Amino acid sequence: MNPFMYYNPTKLLFGKGQLDNLAREISRFGNRVLLVYGGGSIKRNGLYDKIIHMLKHANIEWFELAGVEPNPRVTTVRKGAEICKKEKVDFVLAVGGGSVIDCTKAIVVAAKTDEDVWNIISRQTRATDGLPYGSVVTIAGTGAEMSLSSVISDWEKQDKRAWVSSFSRAKFAIVAPTYMTSVPYKQTVNGIVDAMSHVLEHYFNLATNVPIQDQFCESVLRTIIEVAPKLLNDLENYEYRETIAYASTIALSDQLNMGFIGDWGTHHIDHALSAVHDIPHGGGMAILFPHWMRYVLDVENVLKFKQLAINVFQIDSNGKTDIEIANEGIDTLAQHWASWGAPIKLRDYQITDKTLPLIAEKTIETQPKCGNFKRLTKEDVLAILKSSL
Amino acid sequence: MNPFMYYNPTKLLFGKGQLDNLAREISRFGNRVLLVYGGGSIKRNGLYDKIIHMLKHANIEWFELAGVEPNPRVTTVRKGAEICKKEKVDFVLAVGGGSVIDCTKAIVVAAKTDEDVWNIISRQTRATDGLPYGSVVTIAGTGAEMSLSSVISDWEKQDKRAWVSSFSRAKFAIVAPTYMTSVPYKQTVNGIVDAMSHVLEHYFNLATNVPIQDQFCESVLRTIIEVAPKLLNDLENYEYRETIAYASTIALSDQLNMGFIGDWGTHHIDHALSAVHDIPHGGGMAILFPHWMRYVLDVENVLKFKQLAINVFQIDSNGKTDIEIANEGIDTLAQHWASWGAPIKLRDYQITDKTLPLIAEKTIETQPKCGNFKRLTKEDVLAILKSSL
Repeated sequence: MNPFMYYNPTKLLFGKGQLDNLAREISRFGNRVLLVYGGGSIKRNGLYDKIIHMLKHANIEWFELAGVEPNPRVTTVRKGAEICKKEKVDFVLAVGGGSVIDCTKAIVVAAKTDEDVWNIISRQTRATDGLPYGSVVTIAGTGAEMSLSSVISDWEKQDKRAWVSSFSRAKFAIVAPTYMTSVPYKQTVNGIVDAMSHVLEHYFNLATNVPIQDQFCESVLRTIIEVAPKLLNDLENYEYRETIAYASTIALSDQLNMGFIGDWGTHHIDHALSAVHDIPHGGGMAILFPHWMRYVLDVENVLKFKQLAINVFQIDSNGKTDIEIANEGIDTLAQHWASWGAPIKLRDYQITDKTLPLIAEKTIETQPKCGNFKRLTKEDVLAILKSSL
Repeated sequence: MNPFMYYNPTKLLFGKGQLDNLAREISRFGNRVLLVYGGGSIKRNGLYDKIIHMLKHANIEWFELAGVEPNPRVTTVRKGAEICKKEKVDFVLAVGGGSVIDCTKAIVVAAKTDEDVWNIISRQTRATDGLPYGSVVTIAGTGAEMSLSSVISDWEKQDKRAWVSSFSRAKFAIVAPTYMTSVPYKQTVNGIVDAMSHVLEHYFNLATNVPIQDQFCESVLRTIIEVAPKLLNDLENYEYRETIAYASTIALSDQLNMGFIGDWGTHHIDHALSAVHDIPHGGGMAILFPHWMRYVLDVENVLKFKQLAINVFQIDSNGKTDIEIANEGIDTLAQHWASWGAPIKLRDYQITDKTLPLIAEKTIETQPKCGNFKRLTKEDVLAILKSSL
């Protein structure tokens, strides 16, 4: 493995009853809170009322930023930062899934600078400070709660950027599978694919001597493959929700990628794809990942694909070439995702070949070094996109 | 799984070249340092000189506590705390393995109280403050670098206690496999057994719905089983040292036991055993663990033992009862350890049946609730000890 630094001081509070610690955790940092949430599902499932009750009880004053988009916009970030500044907010609480948390990561740095936050997101300048924040996670998949990274869109510019800052590390994450039981089917599938895609990004790396990390990734993938169809047949099952929630938090907590950097090329392509077409990240990954795999698979890297096929998908290797085994693994992954109802082709989102050159262009423009397991050129990206049509 | 809190803010710096960050990491906390080390192997392998050079270069003043025992004594802790108080030390640096780090964990809380530190270690009172500390890990096995717990002996009282405090969390841990290549054979074996025993303690828990955690434990065990004999045949091999070091750090970092508490009964017995007989912890665990397993195995818990046998030791289950499979797994574990030269019986340390009642007495006295997977009485402990003769 490569020398590495692992540092993840986010306090993870996982499971039943952990929400009861919310006010105590917030109070360690402040008593003027910006509550950030999305489309209002937390009002329907009772979580909003519960949180407000807790804040009142603990004499915490709160302000609200509602309506964070599935692909959060920089305009929304600016609104949040403005509230923080005007109301002298000292803590931000994200309640929801990855979009709400990603938006919050940008709000906390935007609230502490006079610079326009897009300059930070687009890496023209660096964040120098940030408000403390925490999250209550009610949608599994993105793993945003234990990670530094955030993805924000400038919709006017059709620009979507992944960025990181040491100030975007949460103080705590309360992962609440109880509130995940009301997440609808389609969103549940997207979350599952997203979590798996994070593990797969880690898995495709060029490091040597990482047997434990490899097996950790395989463990998470095998478990999701086993539990996902059960959950999708029984959306209100707590135990299945718990397992998927745990898998998705671990997937992006840096515990699976100690000693190497994964590929992440497919993520870069999806960011450009969803900057042009406002599609869900999990949906984009379900379409792109098998095509990325088929495109980059060659004799030089076949052993990693073969390992995945055998250790995760239990492909019988008898009498088959390595390439055949690898391809069977990829096909099996794609079949699983399709059988869960994930999108298969770009056309499932009414995307045609018209925008593909633009998407390929944007991919390489925002990420000139696209892919670590396999470095992709603009032509490579376009070929992957075309095969995904 | 059970609801859980995971919080591990120790910064892990792992691998080649990470030692170069030492002065920078220390300087974040102070410039008057107590350097704690053991029997002097760091002087033989050049590490001491390298560290001193770094401290000088960074204008860090240092004081020394050398000669920390393999089972660190409270008398040594007191000495270290005295130096800290007298010299107004603001940071403690442990260089070595688990004993040195455990001793340091006690020094940092002793340095910040007028109370005798044994009162904290024996849980009569709680630590209220602690100096910051970090470690350079040169012996793999204990995983003390990423854990809160510490084990200290009062040799006069033949008393040995495991204790924890939130102030015994390291600021950083530099894990340096480069300096592990000179660890002698026997000490290497003890470290490997120690790391495996931590994973096994986690593995034997009563939680349900922990498929990922189970597989993580199995991944670490399988990897150690595969790599340990290679390392023992090639002690200077960096890659094997790296894998064992990584496994041992992860084993006690709380990443394998999210959502449950493992058994730990065997650890409690070994603490009493080595309070009476000054034997190495890894050696004690190698003797005791297979006997604990055989003693507690029954029809009610056989499935976990069977799972271990099949998933870790690849026992062929064809035509065998669950108990037979379970026992084959235990036998295979014991055979591996014996084949590496780990001690098999208490007699290997010249321990006879004379002291066993005292050891059983002490086990239950210091740990009335002994074992979580299987609660042990004094009679149980005595029976396990007798079978280990």
